[in-house]
Amino acid sequence: MKLISYLNQQIPSFGALKGNRVIELKARLGNRYPDLKSLLASGLEEAREIVNATDGDLELSQIQQLPVIPNPGTIWCAGMNTHSHYEEAKDHMHLQEKPKKPVLFLRSPATLVASGDDLEKPRLEPVFDYEGEIALVIGKRGRNIEVEKALDYVAGYTPFNDASARMYQIASNQITAGKNAHRSGGFGPCLATADEVDLDTMTLVCRVNGQEMQRMALDDLIFGFAELISYISEFAWLEPGDVIVTGAAEGVGALRQPMVKLEAGDQVEVEVSGVGTLVNGVADQPA
Amino acid sequence: MKLISYLNQQIPSFGALKGNRVIELKARLGNRYPDLKSLLASGLEEAREIVNATDGDLELSQIQQLPVIPNPGTIWCAGMNTHSHYEEAKDHMHLQEKPKKPVLFLRSPATLVASGDDLEKPRLEPVFDYEGEIALVIGKRGRNIEVEKALDYVAGYTPFNDASARMYQIASNQITAGKNAHRSGGFGPCLATADEVDLDTMTLVCRVNGQEMQRMALDDLIFGFAELISYISEFAWLEPGDVIVTGAAEGVGALRQPMVKLEAGDQVEVEVSGVGTLVNGVADQPA
Repeated sequence: MKLISYLNQQIPSFGALKGNRVIELKARLGNRYPDLKSLLASGLEEAREIVNATDGDLELSQIQQLPVIPNPGTIWCAGMNTHSHYEEAKDHMHLQEKPKKPVLFLRSPATLVASGDDLEKPRLEPVFDYEGEIALVIGKRGRNIEVEKALDYVAGYTPFNDASARMYQIASNQITAGKNAHRSGGFGPCLATADEVDLDTMTLVCRVNGQEMQRMALDDLIFGFAELISYISEFAWLEPGDVIVTGAAEGVGALRQPMVKLEAGDQVEVEVSGVGTLVNGVADQPA
Repeated sequence: MKLISYLNQQIPSFGALKGNRVIELKARLGNRYPDLKSLLASGLEEAREIVNATDGDLELSQIQQLPVIPNPGTIWCAGMNTHSHYEEAKDHMHLQEKPKKPVLFLRSPATLVASGDDLEKPRLEPVFDYEGEIALVIGKRGRNIEVEKALDYVAGYTPFNDASARMYQIASNQITAGKNAHRSGGFGPCLATADEVDLDTMTLVCRVNGQEMQRMALDDLIFGFAELISYISEFAWLEPGDVIVTGAAEGVGALRQPMVKLEAGDQVEVEVSGVGTLVNGVADQPA
């Protein structure tokens, strides 16, 4: 299934995609599952039966999409987590060796925007940048999860744009500020459930104004999906609706020659094969 | 006013303290303010009138406290933000100079515990540590806030224990993992509203098993409350219920000779003068 969150006549709702049609799941299941996060925890089988038996209720063009999980729990992000990004960055950033453990930071849920919405460049930021990534959403509560069993905890996968305010990112030795600008996290358009995707062939492509900037297969990840889940679960509980944003490949704008900076009017696409394409414009911070 | 969140016969509620008595505010205002966060945004004057006109409804000993804001927005934390902690850490951590901009990381709301609850030491963590700090809670929405006006955005102040899993903190160059262990953020016991405190004389003391470990006045902060608010608001909106945890002074356990490590059965107190004392035990992660 491909699951979405959206506004239907201003009412927050969630549903499933069938081609360009939307099957409204909240209208049918909302008494037990108030939002997509709660559906992921225990209602996916019921949703699947409805999707198999139902035609679409609405046209995709009739709705306004929300971030795919509008109310996630903790959003864990992996920094410097691809071999290719390490290679392009190591000289510039004076890195001595690849990370021995996952490099983690958090993104506030308050930073999220939906596919179709604009990202916002902060007023004082000279270098606003894209980072196309794959996000996984947790569907089952767990702690001390073994690597071999970790993928059982994933409800599904979605594109993510971890858009970065580079001045704030390098203003101190902690990158969190630059990863938490208002309206800087593109999250959607849909969550492809784990049964629907093929991780062996999953490919990520990020384009700016139609031009390819990043391309990645999963063997580029230093710590793979299962290793990230297992590591985080050593010290934290993972809960349904928690998100792990798994890392960007080479090709970020700030490390290109010449540098590529996002400006108002640009369009960024993050496409994950078998899942969908996140599309976000770029706007300046309102005066 | 001193405001608290608590369970009254298993129902989440909020109220104000009058000595050792609790005035139930949710019972009187809950139709418009479902939680303390919403009260901070626009209901403090109404609450004050009730508190002035009312005796206590319950004994403090009858209720079970919750984290003072059980459902905060973004929790911003300032690292390496006191002159004294910089001096004790600089050689050990090979620091070249004091931070030129606030060093920020996030703490997930999922990590919070109430005063009276135990902190939890992760199973694999050898060095679990206290950090007594002052947290401020935002009461008014703002962006691009000038330093001179920043304190107008503060609803109140509360003690915070930014308990730290040092192995995870230093496992990579980003400290976030070690600041987000399950049940590692002590937050309470009460929020003293801004009109009630005197920042000129505010003192923070942290004790472990009754022995003083940290003591701080606000002139030890490298970036003061107003500067932290102003800086964050450059790139993010601050919202009622957002929290800023403002930094620890010298005396942390990991940098003492001999090292002080929190173990099951220890008790940590974080006292902020004019506000109250946060008390947390320490427990091992359950098997």
